[in-house]
Amino acid sequence: MGDMNGKGPESNVDVLIIGAGPAGLMAASWMAHCGVKARVIDKRNAKVFCGQADGLQCRSLEIFDSLGFGDRAWKEANHMLEICMWNPGSDGVIRRSDRIPDTIPGLSRFSQIVVHQGRIERFFLDNIKKYSKGGIQVERGVLPESLTIDESKVDDDAAYPVTVTLRHLSEEEATPKQQISASKVSDGLFRSNLTYEDDEDDLIKKSSSRTGTSETVHAKYVIGCDGARSWTRRALGYELEGEATDFIWGVLDIIPITDFPDVRMRCAIHSAENGSLMIIPRENKMVRLYIQLKEVTPDATGRADRSKITPDIIFRAAQKIISPYKLDYEYCDWWTAYQIGQRVCTNFDAQRRVFLAGDAVHTHSPKAGQGMNVSMQDCYNLGWKVGLVAKGIVKRNILETYQSERRRVAQDLIDFDHKFSRLFSGRPAKDVLDTEGVSMEEFKDAFSKGNLFASGLSVDYGASNLILKSGDAAKQGDGSILDIPATSQVTVEAFKEKQALATGLPVGMRFSSFKVLNQADARPWHFQERLKADGRFRVVVFAGNILSASQKARVDTFCKALEAPDNFLRAITPSGAAIDSVIEVLTIHSSKRVDTDLLKDFPAILHPFDEHTGWDYWKVFVDDVSYHEGLGAAYENYGVDKERGCVVAVRPDQYVGWIGELEDFSGLQTYFEGILNLPQAGHGENGS
Amino acid sequence: MGDMNGKGPESNVDVLIIGAGPAGLMAASWMAHCGVKARVIDKRNAKVFCGQADGLQCRSLEIFDSLGFGDRAWKEANHMLEICMWNPGSDGVIRRSDRIPDTIPGLSRFSQIVVHQGRIERFFLDNIKKYSKGGIQVERGVLPESLTIDESKVDDDAAYPVTVTLRHLSEEEATPKQQISASKVSDGLFRSNLTYEDDEDDLIKKSSSRTGTSETVHAKYVIGCDGARSWTRRALGYELEGEATDFIWGVLDIIPITDFPDVRMRCAIHSAENGSLMIIPRENKMVRLYIQLKEVTPDATGRADRSKITPDIIFRAAQKIISPYKLDYEYCDWWTAYQIGQRVCTNFDAQRRVFLAGDAVHTHSPKAGQGMNVSMQDCYNLGWKVGLVAKGIVKRNILETYQSERRRVAQDLIDFDHKFSRLFSGRPAKDVLDTEGVSMEEFKDAFSKGNLFASGLSVDYGASNLILKSGDAAKQGDGSILDIPATSQVTVEAFKEKQALATGLPVGMRFSSFKVLNQADARPWHFQERLKADGRFRVVVFAGNILSASQKARVDTFCKALEAPDNFLRAITPSGAAIDSVIEVLTIHSSKRVDTDLLKDFPAILHPFDEHTGWDYWKVFVDDVSYHEGLGAAYENYGVDKERGCVVAVRPDQYVGWIGELEDFSGLQTYFEGILNLPQAGHGENGS
Repeated sequence: MGDMNGKGPESNVDVLIIGAGPAGLMAASWMAHCGVKARVIDKRNAKVFCGQADGLQCRSLEIFDSLGFGDRAWKEANHMLEICMWNPGSDGVIRRSDRIPDTIPGLSRFSQIVVHQGRIERFFLDNIKKYSKGGIQVERGVLPESLTIDESKVDDDAAYPVTVTLRHLSEEEATPKQQISASKVSDGLFRSNLTYEDDEDDLIKKSSSRTGTSETVHAKYVIGCDGARSWTRRALGYELEGEATDFIWGVLDIIPITDFPDVRMRCAIHSAENGSLMIIPRENKMVRLYIQLKEVTPDATGRADRSKITPDIIFRAAQKIISPYKLDYEYCDWWTAYQIGQRVCTNFDAQRRVFLAGDAVHTHSPKAGQGMNVSMQDCYNLGWKVGLVAKGIVKRNILETYQSERRRVAQDLIDFDHKFSRLFSGRPAKDVLDTEGVSMEEFKDAFSKGNLFASGLSVDYGASNLILKSGDAAKQGDGSILDIPATSQVTVEAFKEKQALATGLPVGMRFSSFKVLNQADARPWHFQERLKADGRFRVVVFAGNILSASQKARVDTFCKALEAPDNFLRAITPSGAAIDSVIEVLTIHSSKRVDTDLLKDFPAILHPFDEHTGWDYWKVFVDDVSYHEGLGAAYENYGVDKERGCVVAVRPDQYVGWIGELEDFSGLQTYFEGILNLPQAGHGENGS
Repeated sequence: MGDMNGKGPESNVDVLIIGAGPAGLMAASWMAHCGVKARVIDKRNAKVFCGQADGLQCRSLEIFDSLGFGDRAWKEANHMLEICMWNPGSDGVIRRSDRIPDTIPGLSRFSQIVVHQGRIERFFLDNIKKYSKGGIQVERGVLPESLTIDESKVDDDAAYPVTVTLRHLSEEEATPKQQISASKVSDGLFRSNLTYEDDEDDLIKKSSSRTGTSETVHAKYVIGCDGARSWTRRALGYELEGEATDFIWGVLDIIPITDFPDVRMRCAIHSAENGSLMIIPRENKMVRLYIQLKEVTPDATGRADRSKITPDIIFRAAQKIISPYKLDYEYCDWWTAYQIGQRVCTNFDAQRRVFLAGDAVHTHSPKAGQGMNVSMQDCYNLGWKVGLVAKGIVKRNILETYQSERRRVAQDLIDFDHKFSRLFSGRPAKDVLDTEGVSMEEFKDAFSKGNLFASGLSVDYGASNLILKSGDAAKQGDGSILDIPATSQVTVEAFKEKQALATGLPVGMRFSSFKVLNQADARPWHFQERLKADGRFRVVVFAGNILSASQKARVDTFCKALEAPDNFLRAITPSGAAIDSVIEVLTIHSSKRVDTDLLKDFPAILHPFDEHTGWDYWKVFVDDVSYHEGLGAAYENYGVDKERGCVVAVRPDQYVGWIGELEDFSGLQTYFEGILNLPQAGHGENGS
């Protein structure tokens, strides 16, 4: 590695991640769990300590749990259970009009919580350290300066087609400038969309002493998670499309001193004339207030003058909205302001070698608590794909599903946010004849429906080689055309039959969770707890009533095919590696636990034997009643026939990819042939 | 601090803890949570890394949760759900005769788990560091050499009557000698009761180079948690009473390779002729085997020759017992052996200044998983008492309840273990006429009953100033006579009336846990989660139906008394400190949550106002249905009338101390007068 063109030392890396916020750390976490060589850089020299995003939706918690730290977030967070709607009565005074559950009951084993972004980043950092054994560390104070893609190499799996030059900043250069305020309270304006990009550049380049050194990195893949003013996006020449509104909102994190009765509930307050307020109760006695600033308006350029916005102005606006209740505070932890707008990037990747995620490709208002969640979920979708492609396990064309799957989610998100923001920022209608005002019924309805969307659990990925279902792949995705092999396509009629085998597991949606018991030790598990984010695909065998001779014969036949030498499972497993190292087979049966015996009733492939450690006791589960935690009723909830069962293929990110009968082994084989980089003949050629 | 008599520098400490196993760390944890100055010394230079005790009973998990790390243990542990009994059939071949739940359903929100002692010590160390802010650290390689109590000072609260000289060992001195074995597997013989005390002395004193330095510590209180061959016990001249049996058992931690079907269940196996075996499934694929060694017998001195015991001998014994099933292993993590015996110390303290806990005062066989649990529970009982006495908050005479409460538990434990060991080590009866053999029905019965005892939840402390109930304090305790003031005594009839107010909260037992909702934010909590181990007593106000005017009047009257200037609550609160700093008042009401309002319906003392942070939203709970976790039915489960409620006083260790009507404020006042060091007149004289 020599000094080339004054750009310092050169090195290769499989994956370069630009930006160490929640999205970048999610991507890094996948690399750690998949065992892929990666670097993570961030231009700032410290992680977030207060403020910023804080809401965690159900799906994010499920994801955290799959990585191994859902419990940490759950324990530290404030839990939000109820939303209270406050609107003006006929006398113009606000009163509580409705209560609705914040998370729809039954949707997930988690409900919505609030925990500071800095803690979330801490959980990620600990997790990355643990799984990469210290191999992946965030390099702070490192600024990307150029990015080029060598198009001649983008189809070569062994190549490093992306070249990025990096500059290592001095301590002073990497420290974000905060607005100087008398109160010394942290503010987030430097990250707000009220800051011009020029300010940002100024921020980074202000230092006169260029003490930093440079280097050149050649990467197979680059993931840009560098925020709303993404350097990576600009380097690719991509634009966010959409527009800003005239609505300016302020944000305060305070410990409230108040007689308002619902200050520990999530509240949506519409005042008659003074604008709207959302209360998000937080940890450490704090609440976050989102406050509409009716007295601040954009100038001729469409931008609000941020110098006019102070914590005092924001707080006085809140006091007016919440009147006649008293509101005061002594402690303020953080504040910021933003202008509502919705924008989505036209492209989420370049040459399937450089990807953009999170705020870099979608921006919107923060009140629905979607930003951090959707951003992390972008990378939960992307990370394993890049990781497994880099490892040579899956075909490179699955990378195109990132844009089709996630840009569609981004489009849905800004549509939702556009509608929700308009309803929330609008003046409440005085009566049914006040057509210029916002109907509070319509608002409540949007809020309730929005809750399902906001949970992250309504995401339904469209047809692709990863998602075998019928319909128009372009329409189900973001409109882009996918390269789906004919074998990975399925007719409407055929798909209807397959989906009917597991009506509670829609193909394209995340594998929902119900309690089952481990056959060997009777321990209850939420089944999703067994779908860890370790980069493995899974085949879930619903074995049905294994004590019926005819059903047992069906299971035996399926397992015989699974044991056969040349199938996808054998072919993808590196020679000498355990049979479950790339694809794990899990079983749920529906007979009585005490009437069945792991070793006697289940073929060996379902609980593989290891000569060093004996049988695997952690792969066969039963839908039966537990001693302490009741019955999960998994078959009923998954909509699977208790006698006949079925087989389900699950992606590493827990999405259902394929459903078939126990007889349909060839269908399963075809599904995986459409995804995996199988050796041409025999097995073992994929050796580690 | 000068060098006195060649014993090095001198210093004072409130509490000196000798021994940093689970019992000593539990004591240290209380000091950290209570903010008491303490030192912890241990002669060994490293914590346990494998083997040793591993079972955690329900009550231990409740205790861990009160300290803040129940979730860590729960997450890492193997969960044991079922016990399988295996006995010889009429053909002499073992077969499964019964399955019973390992933890009685409904007993606790936890069930029994298994996690390595080294991890438990890690949880404690992290917890102590967090709560003491680094102030309490374990000092390893430190050996106590002399202990004297100055009897002239034992009644002086300000004095440091206990003097201990310490020697700081060299690295070599402090490393335990392990039996040299070809397999290089860790063994625990150096801690086993098959090791003579001479060996132990040899172990510590073997180094010729006395490089260590000495020091002299003056302590208010000393807690000896230094194991079965306790130096502290010997320094006090106390003896363990009881005797050994002829039963010798071996222990192996292995990853089993076997066709035995229940190897992931807890199993009690009685073979026809080859002795008994217990299987304890563990974390990391391991199981622990407790194996009766019929071929090893004690010599003329009553001791087994430990040189004859090897992992091979132990393992071959296991293979014979489990035959005709095959059992093998490649990986062994740890092994040891022990001779069953039951012993209890005559005294648990000296002058109420030096206390003994854990193995130092009771030893027995390990198979019921009681040793570490009871030892930690000793110190959970003792720690807050010593801590609060050292801080001057409670009267010193409560220290006598340590022996009366915990020596009684130790006596019950060895009675249980004596019976259980005999039944488990005995040859199974061939038929009903075989009266020399053990009846397998009797064994199952003892096991089932033992499970309640073993959970730690049947502990019922006797009458004292801390436990206001009727009956003979000596009989309810360990036989010793307590110094109970007349005002802290209650007649059988009067107690019957009080207990009837909360039939599910027996005075003397731990406050059981059911789900309630926070009134302010609707979050469900197991009520026990709100009884944190922070050294505070608690008054739980069952406010009943607060929406009934007559009931509201009763609550208002009670709260008025609680607000009054000269009561126990005001008097014990240091001037300038928050009203909940010594005693916390928690409320559970039974009206509908949505019909009630924290600020409007509940007197301020139940949710105190702080001028800096506003109202306290975390003290009032409601027995109502939650959105996601059902109904806790707390009033029904606690046996409290939903209209009229009652008041319950709870000790810092979660034991119920007093029950009364809302009208019985004077009873509550009297209860606390019997315990607290109240200033003679007015309040604020207890200032911090």
